[in-house]
Amino acid sequence: MGAFLFPETPSGRSSLIPPPPWHYSGEMITVEFRTHPDRVAELLPEGATLVDDDPGAVALIWADWQSSGDDFEEILDPGRSQYKEVFAVIRGRWNDETWSRCPYIWVDKDFAMVRGYHQGYPKKLGEIWMTRPITVGRAGPRLESGGRFGATVSANGRLVAEATIQLTEPTDSPGFVNGHPMLHNRRWPSIESDGSNSMDELVTMRGYDGEVADVWAADATLALHSTPTEELALLEPLEIIGGYYHRVGVSWRGGTTLEAR
Amino acid sequence: MGAFLFPETPSGRSSLIPPPPWHYSGEMITVEFRTHPDRVAELLPEGATLVDDDPGAVALIWADWQSSGDDFEEILDPGRSQYKEVFAVIRGRWNDETWSRCPYIWVDKDFAMVRGYHQGYPKKLGEIWMTRPITVGRAGPRLESGGRFGATVSANGRLVAEATIQLTEPTDSPGFVNGHPMLHNRRWPSIESDGSNSMDELVTMRGYDGEVADVWAADATLALHSTPTEELALLEPLEIIGGYYHRVGVSWRGGTTLEAR
Amino acid sequence: MGAFLFPETPSGRSSLIPPPPWHYSGEMITVEFRTHPDRVAELLPEGATLVDDDPGAVALIWADWQSSGDDFEEILDPGRSQYKEVFAVIRGRWNDETWSRCPYIWVDKDFAMVRGYHQGYPKKLGEIWMTRPITVGRAGPRLESGGRFGATVSANGRLVAEATIQLTEPTDSPGFVNGHPMLHNRRWPSIESDGSNSMDELVTMRGYDGEVADVWAADATLALHSTPTEELALLEPLEIIGGYYHRVGVSWRGGTTLEAR
Amino acid sequence: MGAFLFPETPSGRSSLIPPPPWHYSGEMITVEFRTHPDRVAELLPEGATLVDDDPGAVALIWADWQSSGDDFEEILDPGRSQYKEVFAVIRGRWNDETWSRCPYIWVDKDFAMVRGYHQGYPKKLGEIWMTRPITVGRAGPRLESGGRFGATVSANGRLVAEATIQLTEPTDSPGFVNGHPMLHNRRWPSIESDGSNSMDELVTMRGYDGEVADVWAADATLALHSTPTEELALLEPLEIIGGYYHRVGVSWRGGTTLEAR
Repeated sequence: MGAFLFPETPSGRSSLIPPPPWHYSGEMITVEFRTHPDRVAELLPEGATLVDDDPGAVALIWADWQSSGDDFEEILDPGRSQYKEVFAVIRGRWNDETWSRCPYIWVDKDFAMVRGYHQGYPKKLGEIWMTRPITVGRAGPRLESGGRFGATVSANGRLVAEATIQLTEPTDSPGFVNGHPMLHNRRWPSIESDGSNSMDELVTMRGYDGEVADVWAADATLALHSTPTEELALLEPLEIIGGYYHRVGVSWRGGTTLEAR
Repeated sequence: MGAFLFPETPSGRSSLIPPPPWHYSGEMITVEFRTHPDRVAELLPEGATLVDDDPGAVALIWADWQSSGDDFEEILDPGRSQYKEVFAVIRGRWNDETWSRCPYIWVDKDFAMVRGYHQGYPKKLGEIWMTRPITVGRAGPRLESGGRFGATVSANGRLVAEATIQLTEPTDSPGFVNGHPMLHNRRWPSIESDGSNSMDELVTMRGYDGEVADVWAADATLALHSTPTEELALLEPLEIIGGYYHRVGVSWRGGTTLEAR
Repeated sequence: MGAFLFPETPSGRSSLIPPPPWHYSGEMITVEFRTHPDRVAELLPEGATLVDDDPGAVALIWADWQSSGDDFEEILDPGRSQYKEVFAVIRGRWNDETWSRCPYIWVDKDFAMVRGYHQGYPKKLGEIWMTRPITVGRAGPRLESGGRFGATVSANGRLVAEATIQLTEPTDSPGFVNGHPMLHNRRWPSIESDGSNSMDELVTMRGYDGEVADVWAADATLALHSTPTEELALLEPLEIIGGYYHRVGVSWRGGTTLEAR
Repeated sequence: MGAFLFPETPSGRSSLIPPPPWHYSGEMITVEFRTHPDRVAELLPEGATLVDDDPGAVALIWADWQSSGDDFEEILDPGRSQYKEVFAVIRGRWNDETWSRCPYIWVDKDFAMVRGYHQGYPKKLGEIWMTRPITVGRAGPRLESGGRFGATVSANGRLVAEATIQLTEPTDSPGFVNGHPMLHNRRWPSIESDGSNSMDELVTMRGYDGEVADVWAADATLALHSTPTEELALLEPLEIIGGYYHRVGVSWRGGTTLEAR
């Protein structure tokens, strides 16, 4: 069967996503902040613990992507290539190493949802907006000191998070929370729906050929909102660490199963 | 952990779907037709064969649902309860029994996508519309002889299928193709993305407390359209068997794993 | 030129809406409440005053419609026929008569937006959900005492209003606020954008062949939320008058210009 | 009343658009082609005629915008600032001058629809996608020779147009069809809906502080598709003139009424 994923057909053409490698190019707005470490700890996988250094640090990252399979067909049908996402990142210790982990993420396309499930991202649909820098005219910020950006994410018709950043100066790195290999769960209950699982894995992954450009530090504001279905606001922002804008290119070919229960 | 599905949190409130049982009430427009049996055969799971009787029969079914978990909370937040879907159903023989099977399905909400993955439905997002019967005014058909309904489904901005039905007379059953227990695959590749699978199951399921009402037979038209990502049109309609309108209520608590490879 | 509205083409086929008459069939959830009369007064047209009796009464109405031109073509392409809307209604005295007036309204289709501009409704896009009554299964209320419905409207990714109703008993009329001929403004600034108007009318209209069915009184809850672009919440609910569910059919052929400045 | 447009409130905050000036920054993909001049002629306003030189020339232009009022508030709430649009441009002679004119246009936000009505653009909602150039990674074209872009527009769930361009070399101007002052109609029928109009104007407008950058010539492909509601395909592409990519910044303060009937 040629299909990487469902729907499975002889041609594989219907598959929600083509086989890896997948290539990504995008821009990101990041706000790093400190919350109650207990709120971080309860989102770590079983057996993982808080990091010692800045255990309550969280990154909330907006990303505006183009992505594609290895034949670059989606690039010419951009509705299949472009998507936006917002994701929270926390850190934990497991097996004597430090990991990044995404406990919440919203995207606006089906192919991105399902590709996320393959990688262990717990994706939901959301409505996501983020200001883009401009080079002509007046309707937006330039990539220069003082440039101001806004970013929002809504789910189920309710605002979940809103941020602004104001660029201060070029910098080397867009934050530290999302800097480790990811530690994700991939779990699907058995169809018996009796508490047993058909798949219950701890996995990790990392991209390759990563490229970062136009990294700016920024002052940031952030507000998180509780809704009937979203608990991001439990990661209450007690203190802003910093904001960032940057561009990123990266490819992804596969990950590693750390544990399969 | 209280969560039935991801995102997993202590409260379970973030989970894309609550634990079963799930309750459904909706209305359906069905068109049954005959296609080339070879096109059906290639969508059956490995080891399954065509049925002897009318092997090329296909049902294409539009459904407009309300659904809810067992506390009925979603009913009062109807954006979490209402969704529309279109799905194809074929039949096959496996292990000396006759099964129904859904090779293609489109829905318009994330919770419905992921609930489908739990049940083995290969769901994608689509834009779905179907005429509703009315009881007052003139803007729609009545549930009576001559009532005309339209139905469309688009994905990635392209029309995938369009149907019309015109009611003829009340009948007992809304078709025969979707009448058997479902035979579905639940497969997720391993994160290694090397051709191995972390989960590869053949499952079946059936609802309970099923209730059918207002079943009408209808004349039908159907057109399927090929798009870069959708292969439904390979199930070329050679002959219309019939059309149907009906209402259905059903609950679902779990299924059965037939094979886990 | 055959076109009722733009885009104008020789065939008229591209027009966002066909020429009247237009036919509507739908269901409605209404919450009537009292707010500060001053908040009502400031939304009346120049020269109009508050009514004496219950001047702060407001109706907030959710509607799930099918609509069509006189050839009923849209009914078979239901994406062009179905839309949902939420609108506020207030009352005022003008020229010795009592009028209803819609100061705020959200819809989810372009044809409905523009048809509204023709009629003087100040329509914006919104995301609108309302529970539907069911006749089979468990996923929704029946049209009977105790039946519970929810309704929400969001705009620009923020929740603007949420309501619930619980049916108590059949009744004759679904409220009194929306019971008069509408008193609407139709105003477009001149393209000079210098404060002058190209069109500045006070108009009225009423449907014909109105039909009401399944009218139920209900207990109701209502919460309005302020957002950067929506001021509905200025109509602060001080007291709930009542809730209603009903079905309605109506046709519309044209209105009357009361004043053209 | 402080409101530039409806809904009108004392604060003016609810208005679908703020008062001009409006500022725009965006990027565009253009395909210019020749069609039957008769198809162009029938979309010109009464009294206008075809141009002598290349009378069948048409531009189809995809644009991805940020826009804002003069306080730049929308830039920080980017869901109110960003929109995409696709518009056709033709040319005509009227009153001894040559004009550009937009007979068809689709956008994806309500504020852009209504701002267009103010300017005489016959806007409908559509789903619009266009490839963006990248500077890092592999998921997209660079602004360099050989860079390939795709662009699509759908309305009512049907594909209306799809284009690709492949950059060849930098150039001075992104085409000639959209180079004249616009000649637009602004017409609203009277609410009497009896064939009379409340407003029927011929208007023109032009931006100021226009800035163009990164202009590339390109080879282009284009396919237009007929749908039940869209007649763009009547402008059948007989010959491709050329393709373009460019960035543009512009502001807009007002236009001029040429004729008011």
